[in-house]
Amino acid sequence: MVDQVARLEAAARERLDPAAYAYYAAGSDEEISVGEAAAAWRSWRLLPRVLRDVSHVDTSLSLAGTPLATPVLAGPSALHGMADPQGEVATARGVAGAGSLLVLSSRSSRPIEQVAEVAGPWWYQVYCLRDREVTGEQVRRAARAGARALVLTVDAPYVAPKPRVRDPLPLGAHGDEALANIPGVRAQDREQDPSIDARVIGQLAEQSGLPVLVKGVLRADDAVRCVQAGAAGVIVSNHGGRQLDRAVASAHALPAVAEAVGDRVPVLVDGGIRTGTDVLVALALGARAVLLGRPVLWALAVGGSGGVGALLESYRSQLSTAMALAGAVNLAEVTADLVAGAGRSRG
Amino acid sequence: MVDQVARLEAAARERLDPAAYAYYAAGSDEEISVGEAAAAWRSWRLLPRVLRDVSHVDTSLSLAGTPLATPVLAGPSALHGMADPQGEVATARGVAGAGSLLVLSSRSSRPIEQVAEVAGPWWYQVYCLRDREVTGEQVRRAARAGARALVLTVDAPYVAPKPRVRDPLPLGAHGDEALANIPGVRAQDREQDPSIDARVIGQLAEQSGLPVLVKGVLRADDAVRCVQAGAAGVIVSNHGGRQLDRAVASAHALPAVAEAVGDRVPVLVDGGIRTGTDVLVALALGARAVLLGRPVLWALAVGGSGGVGALLESYRSQLSTAMALAGAVNLAEVTADLVAGAGRSRG
Amino acid sequence: MVDQVARLEAAARERLDPAAYAYYAAGSDEEISVGEAAAAWRSWRLLPRVLRDVSHVDTSLSLAGTPLATPVLAGPSALHGMADPQGEVATARGVAGAGSLLVLSSRSSRPIEQVAEVAGPWWYQVYCLRDREVTGEQVRRAARAGARALVLTVDAPYVAPKPRVRDPLPLGAHGDEALANIPGVRAQDREQDPSIDARVIGQLAEQSGLPVLVKGVLRADDAVRCVQAGAAGVIVSNHGGRQLDRAVASAHALPAVAEAVGDRVPVLVDGGIRTGTDVLVALALGARAVLLGRPVLWALAVGGSGGVGALLESYRSQLSTAMALAGAVNLAEVTADLVAGAGRSRG
Amino acid sequence: MVDQVARLEAAARERLDPAAYAYYAAGSDEEISVGEAAAAWRSWRLLPRVLRDVSHVDTSLSLAGTPLATPVLAGPSALHGMADPQGEVATARGVAGAGSLLVLSSRSSRPIEQVAEVAGPWWYQVYCLRDREVTGEQVRRAARAGARALVLTVDAPYVAPKPRVRDPLPLGAHGDEALANIPGVRAQDREQDPSIDARVIGQLAEQSGLPVLVKGVLRADDAVRCVQAGAAGVIVSNHGGRQLDRAVASAHALPAVAEAVGDRVPVLVDGGIRTGTDVLVALALGARAVLLGRPVLWALAVGGSGGVGALLESYRSQLSTAMALAGAVNLAEVTADLVAGAGRSRG
Repeated sequence: MVDQVARLEAAARERLDPAAYAYYAAGSDEEISVGEAAAAWRSWRLLPRVLRDVSHVDTSLSLAGTPLATPVLAGPSALHGMADPQGEVATARGVAGAGSLLVLSSRSSRPIEQVAEVAGPWWYQVYCLRDREVTGEQVRRAARAGARALVLTVDAPYVAPKPRVRDPLPLGAHGDEALANIPGVRAQDREQDPSIDARVIGQLAEQSGLPVLVKGVLRADDAVRCVQAGAAGVIVSNHGGRQLDRAVASAHALPAVAEAVGDRVPVLVDGGIRTGTDVLVALALGARAVLLGRPVLWALAVGGSGGVGALLESYRSQLSTAMALAGAVNLAEVTADLVAGAGRSRG
Repeated sequence: MVDQVARLEAAARERLDPAAYAYYAAGSDEEISVGEAAAAWRSWRLLPRVLRDVSHVDTSLSLAGTPLATPVLAGPSALHGMADPQGEVATARGVAGAGSLLVLSSRSSRPIEQVAEVAGPWWYQVYCLRDREVTGEQVRRAARAGARALVLTVDAPYVAPKPRVRDPLPLGAHGDEALANIPGVRAQDREQDPSIDARVIGQLAEQSGLPVLVKGVLRADDAVRCVQAGAAGVIVSNHGGRQLDRAVASAHALPAVAEAVGDRVPVLVDGGIRTGTDVLVALALGARAVLLGRPVLWALAVGGSGGVGALLESYRSQLSTAMALAGAVNLAEVTADLVAGAGRSRG
Repeated sequence: MVDQVARLEAAARERLDPAAYAYYAAGSDEEISVGEAAAAWRSWRLLPRVLRDVSHVDTSLSLAGTPLATPVLAGPSALHGMADPQGEVATARGVAGAGSLLVLSSRSSRPIEQVAEVAGPWWYQVYCLRDREVTGEQVRRAARAGARALVLTVDAPYVAPKPRVRDPLPLGAHGDEALANIPGVRAQDREQDPSIDARVIGQLAEQSGLPVLVKGVLRADDAVRCVQAGAAGVIVSNHGGRQLDRAVASAHALPAVAEAVGDRVPVLVDGGIRTGTDVLVALALGARAVLLGRPVLWALAVGGSGGVGALLESYRSQLSTAMALAGAVNLAEVTADLVAGAGRSRG
Repeated sequence: MVDQVARLEAAARERLDPAAYAYYAAGSDEEISVGEAAAAWRSWRLLPRVLRDVSHVDTSLSLAGTPLATPVLAGPSALHGMADPQGEVATARGVAGAGSLLVLSSRSSRPIEQVAEVAGPWWYQVYCLRDREVTGEQVRRAARAGARALVLTVDAPYVAPKPRVRDPLPLGAHGDEALANIPGVRAQDREQDPSIDARVIGQLAEQSGLPVLVKGVLRADDAVRCVQAGAAGVIVSNHGGRQLDRAVASAHALPAVAEAVGDRVPVLVDGGIRTGTDVLVALALGARAVLLGRPVLWALAVGGSGGVGALLESYRSQLSTAMALAGAVNLAEVTADLVAGAGRSRG
């Protein structure tokens, strides 16, 4: 059966400008990583517990000090203005209504402050640019606007080629600021700095006064280095298959990273999470929460802020049902013994 | 080659009301578990023994004190009245004629007593409902009618969504009592109680005076807990792929459960068993008997009670042939050394 | 690319009576074993040796005291008269011309003596029948006619159902004697005796004065029992997928059997061997020689005795080339280190 | 997505004489090895490092004393004259322009000296022929013309049959010398000598005064023997799937060979390398450099010397990008921890 996100994507594709759809959907090079992300989650099987009292299931959590109704967050993605005239403002409304958290991309179509005005809890995604003053100003601006944390993307020292992205993007309203932020048309000072190392984590924390989570980690040793350098969290991600093609699926990278990090900081994950059952698997493999990328864009294109809210609530509801059927009544009970590799049992 | 059950299903589909077919065939969510159940049995290969005296092959057994001609039982499934005007009465006749045992669903289209009147040995399947008095009355009524054991289904604290089930069911004759029993239209007191734990096993045994087998177990630890709580048997099952989607295939869950339970109580299994050779594999992996779900419904729809009897006899006959060709003359000789994972030998 | 045997089968199918083709091609039940035999050999990869002197490659061997030019033998198959008017007489001529050995089926279309007259070295395949006097007479008759060994088939205590075999067979000339030998139409005294055990090996050797190889062994423990009971050789086989369906592929069963038997007696193998490279794999996995089943029938149907000879020579030539390219100059140098599972190396 | 080489091959096929295309594209026997070479590289996944300074990425190396801009070399392939009127002269120009190295086939369409005149650094590929004087003359001629090393091909003691190669080759200009060099039409003294062993390595080194790399090694033990016999390098190869069919993919053979050889001499690899990411994988698995076979022919057919240069530069550029995104700034940093088997992580 076609999953909910595939249906949503098909509907979104009909509404979106083809160039916008291509930009959102594209992966790098041969699109191997983008093509296998979802299947990696589905390769896990579940070993549900029975005869537990599951009359009350609770999907809430506290993440970096912020209480949330659901571990399904809206991850950072660029240029929501191509999907909805309100852009990230609409996204933020939908996310807030669902009791979730928005990670606002630094390549937002809308100014930070406009988004912040309507948002619930939000974090700010940032690249470390060649001109550190620009980056410093970005993070201070985000902090002033109310961001509760920074998410530093580290898997894009350069922008990987994406064969599907060929045509000019329909940037529309607020295109000018957006334009300044996107790859290919930006000025030199807007380019990511390929020379950064782990010390940048502390520098950004100091500049912004905010905790810094590091996004784009696939290796246990890198995760440990980030934690030692002061990261407030680690996000396992291969950038939606848009950077190094053939990078391991986040579903396969997650267990080793989570084991290495342990309880020191939360580990989050994104990439190919298509249903509430995928979320259950991710949590069982060690994630504290998950981020959605393209699904939010498809929901936004199809249903605006209401669509985004409904999407997040659908994931939460599916997660809740799956937890009940698996015998877990809160997120702490979603543990590794619930999952087994496809075709094998370890119950 | 298409297997016997696939042919039977195709024939049944032509005769059934589309809504009834969808109800019987449906799995939950994306139907991943329902889609891989049969393939899981077929992934095992056989290592037949030769030069044994196989002039007499015996498929009989004693199960929970009841002598049976075959280890292939008719498992519990709801609403046989949609497949045959006689409903479970017809099913019971066919099962009895084949020397097998019927597990009568508490969501039967026909009253318990009418079925009991024509049945051979039978067990009664039950959910523990929110209103324990209703459940207590059900099991006492079943005991009075001659049930030899209860089968407590524990993998459905809630009913999972099944996208294929959309239309009203053609409940037909006896629809009123049936209607009271089926999900979605039942009253609150007919809902499963999601708060039960293993103590319910002893409570039901006490209320009914019957042994209680627990159905829907996929984990070794849960199986041990059930045995410790007094279960008279454990049935490895993922509810035909109708509850937690992506639950491990019963063919993959069985070995660990059987090993953990050992000889304390019989372990049974259902899900995707399509031929007598599947039965041989299941027994070799530790099951004492198997239950058929949908195949019984297809046979009932196509051939009524005679169809059900022929189906069970076909499984028994295939099992007998496979045993002879594998060098096993009785069920005790169907041991783990007869099977190997696909593509590997351990002879 | 389509392999040589697939092409030959297609050509044979055009010439054969459809019922004869179905009889030859059929497997039992769902035809799982028959469908995966060839792929099992192809799942192995080769680790060729280089910088060896391969200017002379020798495929000859001595098998049970008989010198042969090639380790590729013609295995026993029934009723060659449906493929060629000369039946097994034609087959025997082709085999002899290729310097190979014929295992004559006891279900031959032609009398033993007519075949023996034109044959090179040959063995006689036999079932142990319910009437032991009939079997005794068969093996003495074969010994008198010049058979050098018996091949006792042990994987057919009963004949498995083959859904493809429905129509009467076109038995043609010599049909009367053939008819007496084939399953389904034979008298009770012609049925295999399902009660035999390993003692029959010694009994047949005594009755015939011939060494007895046992065909149809897939388990190491059975192979050891056969050797202990006096077998002069063991043939790993699942009867061309015509007996217990889902029996392990002979390519997967061979290594464990060969290891258990060691150097005590030769281990042979059949089933799905389609090219000389398959032969190389089989020898590397521990076989001393291989037997061809259906390929001989296809060659016979297409080219008569010349076709059979060309087929065997083609296998031998391919084997010789593969040995040269793999750095093995005689069969003793075809050792286990030449093969690795698909996708892995152990060089 | 279709990879760059597949697109190039399709374009080349339109321009090439069908017999020439078949000759280039063909594999031996059933073309199993040729069919799985590329997929073997793609079966590996990457574990990129983050937060490293990747502002400068360097793909240069020194190979057997020769400084090169890229580890992607043009491997030996026969008869470039069928792809371009200038043949290997055009190839050599393209290779030199890309800062790479040409391994000139002894089955060149053009005389050694004409190629040498325009080439950058080049090695000379040689077979050891039955007439050793011919071989001696070949290698001395190559040394005089400026070859920096010899590449001795050892996996072709005989030429394997290639079913696709049926028609006469369009040898065109310089066909006479070429004709003398190609299999099937050459004189006896031009045939490879199947009797050679590892001593030939030292003999060729002595005759030519050049270091000798051995090409066609798939086993660790053979690699060690070559090194002990004086080889200056080992090239892991299955001859593009044109010799022993079902020989293990070079991607699977490489790790064991590289581990056995260690740092004693460089290990190179060819076969199925289609992108810069494949190169990254090969280097991570232990190769010091890679060789391209058919891709060079397709590029030559489509774009002449410019096409060859662009192809090599494309590989180098892709490798550089992949290194940056994987956190490796020079070839020494491309280590085994960057790769993991598909579906698994070892980060």
